[in-house]
Amino acid sequence: MLVVKVGGAAGTAMDPLLDELAAMTEPWVLVHGGNAELDALARRLGLEPRFVTSPSGHVSRYTDPETVRLIQMVYRGQINNDLVARLVTRGVRAVGLSGVDGGMWRARRKESIRVVENGRRLLLRGDHTGRIEDVDPGLLDLLIANGYRPVLTLPALAEEGVAVNVDGDRAAAAIATAMGAADLLILSNTPGLLRDPLDPDSLIPRVPRGGFAAVEGFAQGRFKKKLIAAQEALEGGVQRVILATANRDAPIASARAGHGTVIG
Amino acid sequence: MLVVKVGGAAGTAMDPLLDELAAMTEPWVLVHGGNAELDALARRLGLEPRFVTSPSGHVSRYTDPETVRLIQMVYRGQINNDLVARLVTRGVRAVGLSGVDGGMWRARRKESIRVVENGRRLLLRGDHTGRIEDVDPGLLDLLIANGYRPVLTLPALAEEGVAVNVDGDRAAAAIATAMGAADLLILSNTPGLLRDPLDPDSLIPRVPRGGFAAVEGFAQGRFKKKLIAAQEALEGGVQRVILATANRDAPIASARAGHGTVIG
Repeated sequence: MLVVKVGGAAGTAMDPLLDELAAMTEPWVLVHGGNAELDALARRLGLEPRFVTSPSGHVSRYTDPETVRLIQMVYRGQINNDLVARLVTRGVRAVGLSGVDGGMWRARRKESIRVVENGRRLLLRGDHTGRIEDVDPGLLDLLIANGYRPVLTLPALAEEGVAVNVDGDRAAAAIATAMGAADLLILSNTPGLLRDPLDPDSLIPRVPRGGFAAVEGFAQGRFKKKLIAAQEALEGGVQRVILATANRDAPIASARAGHGTVIG
Repeated sequence: MLVVKVGGAAGTAMDPLLDELAAMTEPWVLVHGGNAELDALARRLGLEPRFVTSPSGHVSRYTDPETVRLIQMVYRGQINNDLVARLVTRGVRAVGLSGVDGGMWRARRKESIRVVENGRRLLLRGDHTGRIEDVDPGLLDLLIANGYRPVLTLPALAEEGVAVNVDGDRAAAAIATAMGAADLLILSNTPGLLRDPLDPDSLIPRVPRGGFAAVEGFAQGRFKKKLIAAQEALEGGVQRVILATANRDAPIASARAGHGTVIG
């Protein structure tokens, strides 16, 4: 059982991954993002994404109800359906699902968040983000056992029936844990964790299980969350998490052969 | 086995239907539309829907690739995910699917359509609409047998791997046929087929199996397609098709008790 997360940043190739998935006999679950398309739709609608800064300096997207709707439209409606169509065309019995389906991803919503704006601390209400607390693997197990292949994306469902934004990498870690996956591959448009984000030759090839503290300083931007996701997956029983590029032929075999940052 | 189609016109209540579905022990499949929300998103994006007229005078939406994307966003992304969340919150193990998932709805795309514009006949290419030719009930049967409840919507998948727009009522008829449903309910914001669309007291309560010709003249706008769908469902082995309102308590029981236009 393999769980593959592929990011939604601009410049992330999909065809090599879809070709490889279509040829695999080993069962898999694909989890995908969609940030670049989300920003594009928001801009077309004249909506500026709002980013907020926590007291500890962490920057994140403020997700109002309108943004949750856009996430559903882009991640669930457009990208998920497109990927499923492309897999079905390749002969895969792919089934698209969001975390809401079958109540699969249960999240705890952060009802209010502390932010710092113009040097002042504020308590901001109305945010629709959350953290996955529970993944029910029943629906995924049923589909896989019957030859279907799940393609998963945001949003998740919070207790009150509200759809919420969650981090895609950490969602993939929760899925890999719940499914008892041996490997979690987190693919993006970069070759892995780099010592210098501007130098693709500065790849960190290996992070041992106890070695997160030594590399945390190199993780910038979205790689901070990828390292947290990797740690959560290992704690959940996953044997290896590999951060690697989607932009080459056979990205899965390549990552498993060690081309990327192998964690665990 | 019951198949319920609920339309996407403005002013169609959803809560009574969702409450009733959540309380049912009989298995069901819900098929839904989303036209009003589709038009709203198109307007926000500054896109004017283009309607074309066939040589026989039939008016339909011209579906360019951009419109297919919007259909995926609105039907599949926003409305489907919302309905699933509301059902899960009511304790239903609802699973949202489009016709693309598992290659469920196979459509034949009309590659070009004949239209009349300004009195001239034109052959218009690039349209992304189709007609469902085959429904694979395997995924639906699997889900239902395991306690899940499918919530279905557009688009369908054409042979070349292209997502296409199809008529929702006729899609529901194809599903009801493939599932061997006894009843197909087509709910909307009107009480059924009316002799006079402006007079809700002019309901036609009953259309016998051979009686379509006698009532066709009363079907205006979207009711033309509903009658075609009803006829296709009956030909496919469905026993009763009922056109009824969603805007009352227990709309399913009400329709089955004969409040609406009972066909068959």
